[in-house]
Amino acid sequence: MTKRRLVILAEGRLDVFSAKTAVSVIRYRREEVVAIIDHGNKGKDLNSIVGVGRGIPIVSNVDETLKLKPTDLLIGIAPPGGMLPAEWRKHITDALKNRLHIISGLHLHLSEDREFCKLAQDHQMKIWDVRIPPEDIPLGTGKAKETNTLRILTVGSDCNIGKMVTSIEITNAARSRNINVCFVATGQTGIMIEGSGIAVDHVVSDFISGAAERLVLDRAQYQLLSIEGQGTIVHPAYSGVTLGLLHGSVPQGLILCHQPTRKTLRHFPNFPILPLPYLIELYEKLAQPLHPCKVLGISLNCFGMSDYDALEEIEKAEKETKLPATDPIKFGVDKFIDVIQAILP
Amino acid sequence: MTKRRLVILAEGRLDVFSAKTAVSVIRYRREEVVAIIDHGNKGKDLNSIVGVGRGIPIVSNVDETLKLKPTDLLIGIAPPGGMLPAEWRKHITDALKNRLHIISGLHLHLSEDREFCKLAQDHQMKIWDVRIPPEDIPLGTGKAKETNTLRILTVGSDCNIGKMVTSIEITNAARSRNINVCFVATGQTGIMIEGSGIAVDHVVSDFISGAAERLVLDRAQYQLLSIEGQGTIVHPAYSGVTLGLLHGSVPQGLILCHQPTRKTLRHFPNFPILPLPYLIELYEKLAQPLHPCKVLGISLNCFGMSDYDALEEIEKAEKETKLPATDPIKFGVDKFIDVIQAILP
Repeated sequence: MTKRRLVILAEGRLDVFSAKTAVSVIRYRREEVVAIIDHGNKGKDLNSIVGVGRGIPIVSNVDETLKLKPTDLLIGIAPPGGMLPAEWRKHITDALKNRLHIISGLHLHLSEDREFCKLAQDHQMKIWDVRIPPEDIPLGTGKAKETNTLRILTVGSDCNIGKMVTSIEITNAARSRNINVCFVATGQTGIMIEGSGIAVDHVVSDFISGAAERLVLDRAQYQLLSIEGQGTIVHPAYSGVTLGLLHGSVPQGLILCHQPTRKTLRHFPNFPILPLPYLIELYEKLAQPLHPCKVLGISLNCFGMSDYDALEEIEKAEKETKLPATDPIKFGVDKFIDVIQAILP
Repeated sequence: MTKRRLVILAEGRLDVFSAKTAVSVIRYRREEVVAIIDHGNKGKDLNSIVGVGRGIPIVSNVDETLKLKPTDLLIGIAPPGGMLPAEWRKHITDALKNRLHIISGLHLHLSEDREFCKLAQDHQMKIWDVRIPPEDIPLGTGKAKETNTLRILTVGSDCNIGKMVTSIEITNAARSRNINVCFVATGQTGIMIEGSGIAVDHVVSDFISGAAERLVLDRAQYQLLSIEGQGTIVHPAYSGVTLGLLHGSVPQGLILCHQPTRKTLRHFPNFPILPLPYLIELYEKLAQPLHPCKVLGISLNCFGMSDYDALEEIEKAEKETKLPATDPIKFGVDKFIDVIQAILP
């Protein structure tokens, strides 16, 4: 892959909450991001606004980025109200006219917009709606288990609890120990960061595990695949995606992600988070009939806690599960890499 | 619903294997089927060809059925090679011109065919592609658990093992005991038989449980819902659908379907069928965090076995699981209805 030089469109939405995907891309692909477009914040310090991206210029429009030789315009924010604001349209058409590819995580598909489509064709640029899965995904067959790669999948006690971050941190830490590793993205933000992947929750339900299997088979040359998990195994909305991903990727090891302060499922106050031992048993019993598989560690999201309190939670989790635990952001994932390295093929 | 008077198109495909869906519709909706179209078998005895449907005439074309006042042409067979043969087109256009609705289980969507569409509009007829899910399915919320209806879901040790048949037999037996029951169809054939339902394996994966939930909420006025299960909980291709259906319908009771002679998953000789106690524990542990739920009985598919051997298998299963077991086709489902009746709201 040619090195990307990303301009991120954050027009009017440049804050930590509205620009979550953009912030993650800046955090994990700092070296690829050449500019941010948000005319209201032009010239300001990005880091002081969103806490990442020190030194990346904030500009008004695509023209001002051209001297930085950008390759792609990345749209990592959702428009207010779901419709595409007029000024965004202008930025996107400007980008295409100036020969930038478009990477979009929007619900509405830019590749199906007649004007954008025509411009992209005229200038031989690509519009990549990362949510749209490829059309030729086959049914799952279990073949991922035959690959000679160590497949580590993150699972969780809930959604939005740190699975993507944990998988990326494992990838980065493994790479720094010279392990030939690939991050396998299965959701919108992960795909934007990695530049490839399939949004498994957008696949027709018969093909969830087929999508996960395809992701593994296409990356079978790696020693280690750090696979981004989705959802959780007992959930009123998303458990089907979680299980299809588990049975399609056929992992040998799982990292269970959890947030100690969260007591009920996000957006579902009537559904308590299950105890870690219950979840461990469940995930292992579901995975093992396809291939031997163990939960290898507990990834705690101790956001908002002091380091002291976080360490206490980590100790508690280790005692409860007899597994290594850490908070990847506060304390790194060396504990996980030790375990993973010991079972590398 | 006005009573349907179905003509089934089985042109050139009238045998037990090619016309599986058609045969199921004839078996369970004998009273609705007024004729079969297959010009090669015109005038022959349907029962002697497919083992069901004694007395239903086999005719050459739609014209010959008109005196029987049909309401719908049902296409329950798959065309050889996937393309629609010319003579089938003719039957479908004839049906629309003569004011018959179309019910189709084909992969290719007849409602997207320009000629059929125009004809349907002109004659105010409906083309119902049963595989196409409704567009407005919401995310699952767990709300099915708040309905005051007994929700019984069939689950299985594999696909194609008798879940639909078991759910229908439970429906029929419950009805004969004056229970206010509704069969909830979740797959193509079930939908054709029932005249309503959602093919949950064709829904975008984020919405599997939402589809199941919708099916339950729309039928909350019944005392008993007999819900057709799909797939199995450990499967290289279909487990996501199975779990989404479980968490969307939030059943209080499960009937586990199994075929004693089957030792490995259908089409997957490398994946052994799991022991019944393992499956029971797994299904219950997955279901119970949303709502108390137990496996209530074992439905054995003893196809091809003598009654004597089948009874031996039933006894074995009862001993192994401490649950009532039966073969619904050979011995009925009274054992299940006894248990269900005891916990009816």
